[in-house]
Amino acid sequence: MSFDQPLPLQGGGVLSAYQLSYETYGELNAARDNAVLICHALNASHHVAGHYPGQAKSEGWWDNMIGPGKPVDTTRFFVIGVNNLGSCFGSTGPMHTNPATGRVYGADFPVVTVEDWVQAQARLLDALGIGQLAAVMGGSLGGMQALSWSLQFPDRLRHAVVIASAPNLNAENIAFNEVARRAIVTDPDFHGGHFYAHGVVPKRGLRIARMLGHITYLSDDVMNTKFGRLLQNGEALKYSTQEIEFQIESYLRHQGDKFSEYFDANTYLLITRALDYFDPARAFNNNLTAALARASAQFLLVSFTTDWRFAPSRSREMVQALVANQRQVSYAEIDAPHGHDAFLLDDPRYLSLVRAYFERIGAGGAA
Amino acid sequence: MSFDQPLPLQGGGVLSAYQLSYETYGELNAARDNAVLICHALNASHHVAGHYPGQAKSEGWWDNMIGPGKPVDTTRFFVIGVNNLGSCFGSTGPMHTNPATGRVYGADFPVVTVEDWVQAQARLLDALGIGQLAAVMGGSLGGMQALSWSLQFPDRLRHAVVIASAPNLNAENIAFNEVARRAIVTDPDFHGGHFYAHGVVPKRGLRIARMLGHITYLSDDVMNTKFGRLLQNGEALKYSTQEIEFQIESYLRHQGDKFSEYFDANTYLLITRALDYFDPARAFNNNLTAALARASAQFLLVSFTTDWRFAPSRSREMVQALVANQRQVSYAEIDAPHGHDAFLLDDPRYLSLVRAYFERIGAGGAA
Repeated sequence: MSFDQPLPLQGGGVLSAYQLSYETYGELNAARDNAVLICHALNASHHVAGHYPGQAKSEGWWDNMIGPGKPVDTTRFFVIGVNNLGSCFGSTGPMHTNPATGRVYGADFPVVTVEDWVQAQARLLDALGIGQLAAVMGGSLGGMQALSWSLQFPDRLRHAVVIASAPNLNAENIAFNEVARRAIVTDPDFHGGHFYAHGVVPKRGLRIARMLGHITYLSDDVMNTKFGRLLQNGEALKYSTQEIEFQIESYLRHQGDKFSEYFDANTYLLITRALDYFDPARAFNNNLTAALARASAQFLLVSFTTDWRFAPSRSREMVQALVANQRQVSYAEIDAPHGHDAFLLDDPRYLSLVRAYFERIGAGGAA
Repeated sequence: MSFDQPLPLQGGGVLSAYQLSYETYGELNAARDNAVLICHALNASHHVAGHYPGQAKSEGWWDNMIGPGKPVDTTRFFVIGVNNLGSCFGSTGPMHTNPATGRVYGADFPVVTVEDWVQAQARLLDALGIGQLAAVMGGSLGGMQALSWSLQFPDRLRHAVVIASAPNLNAENIAFNEVARRAIVTDPDFHGGHFYAHGVVPKRGLRIARMLGHITYLSDDVMNTKFGRLLQNGEALKYSTQEIEFQIESYLRHQGDKFSEYFDANTYLLITRALDYFDPARAFNNNLTAALARASAQFLLVSFTTDWRFAPSRSREMVQALVANQRQVSYAEIDAPHGHDAFLLDDPRYLSLVRAYFERIGAGGAA
């Protein structure tokens, strides 16, 4: 969908015109009160559920969660997936042409924040004729958007579902993002972010960024269970510094290679920066309770015990701040071995918990 | 010191001749039984204590631990620091000339293992006329060498002091090493490891490797305490993907820059590989108790609660295996906030514990 009304950005710039790619699942009811907005994290898109006919492996990234009869049941809810500004899956981003210059944006694409994304998403809802959402839901960076929705548009959502998320990144999270960004920016093929004109892609940097990301998405436990110290080729050691020796090396290289084939380097910088910047408490002297006082939605928060990227303690900070504001909050800490990735996986307790919550939303109407 | 007798390597190769740089502190006593060997970790050297006259900031890397009146008291012990083969601080390594080809080794330097280092260190002791060490001591990778000493030369040491170490790396540790290695190897200035001939250094890769290393050396806690979300320049956000915004970014970039000025890229590959390969239990069907049955030394093991790189649980594995073999073991788990780096820092409980242990060694003689 095209938008012509300029979008002022938190960083000071303006996007004069932009496109948002989105998908919907299910039907908007007559009361227009059954819409659920799904917000994506770093490398996902508007394609949250279902698959494209005749296209193998085209399942949406949250297809285990969203669909007919699934925890977020699209026979009951009208689900909207939207690709965020600055991403590389259809919505306006660094690979597109800057109307001001006629050249590809590249590194000139303005820094966009979680707050900016929410503003853009709200305009999409306006265009779709949806005043109030039944829920906004997301995991990780998507959970930050759900939280931000409850603060920027408290009247436009009844429920916020914030999964494996945090009220801001801690120093270690920022540090990992920075290493990934430096790997990309210092790749000679980055060309200051204008690599498109050179017909190259900074794949080396993207590979490193993705390998590093994968380490932080998994738990120590699951890595030891899946890979441990297993060798790639039989039992004979090669004694090589550069050849693959351990299976974990092969796994990471494969993930890095795949990612570098489809993901945009400038998008990686933009999205990790949106993560770094998100911090609703900053304007409230780091008082999260004060920051969340504006929220009026009901909340479901979920965390996973082995998630060391967005640890349960970070979810509990949000729970405490909401409770201090006497908001209605459900919180579950799921004992799952998979680390941060758990929010995308088939943990039965997790999925039934979300199912039960959405059944309550459905039953409660305006709750 | 030069060695002309070829050194067969675990990986199958041979070093026909090599040099070992070493330093000693204190005096070897008449009984020749007060020698303590200090083994270094990734980026350290033989310069473990004291400083070079007239040279500012030349303190040895373990100067808080070793010296006159210090926990490892050089008025009582004869302390030896040795630079390992493949390193870049004087001992034979990838920056030196391969006598077989007349060219700089570069990537052709053979993969060396913890076991190889111990063999080379034993020859140095032969040359110094030291039959049996009072102790071998090291932290992290240095602790692996101390453990390996107890297995390869059980009669040549009375005590093994193994600090912040592990009986092998787990999958996550190998994964971090692999990301660092890929950053170096895929840097166009690496030239397959023969960058010396091109007059360049793969600094981009070294920077990334070091930034990543620093994240794993620190605890989440200490990062939040030292840096948190503090901005580098006042309170105004820059909204930039490439400029430094947070202090943690500045810290990491600085560490990366410094490191890339002095450390050798091939050495980084070699030493991380030595870490990956170390696994004395592998030859015993992953039975650590069986692997450690050969050890006859007395042990002191120390771990630090917030060390997530070499977690206390890994030290406890070694303690259990030694106890199962009815070896004499002292173990301390120090409640320190600093993560893996704690083994190099001034924690009073830690330093007095090591002091007390060495007083016992000194009192006990052949104990």
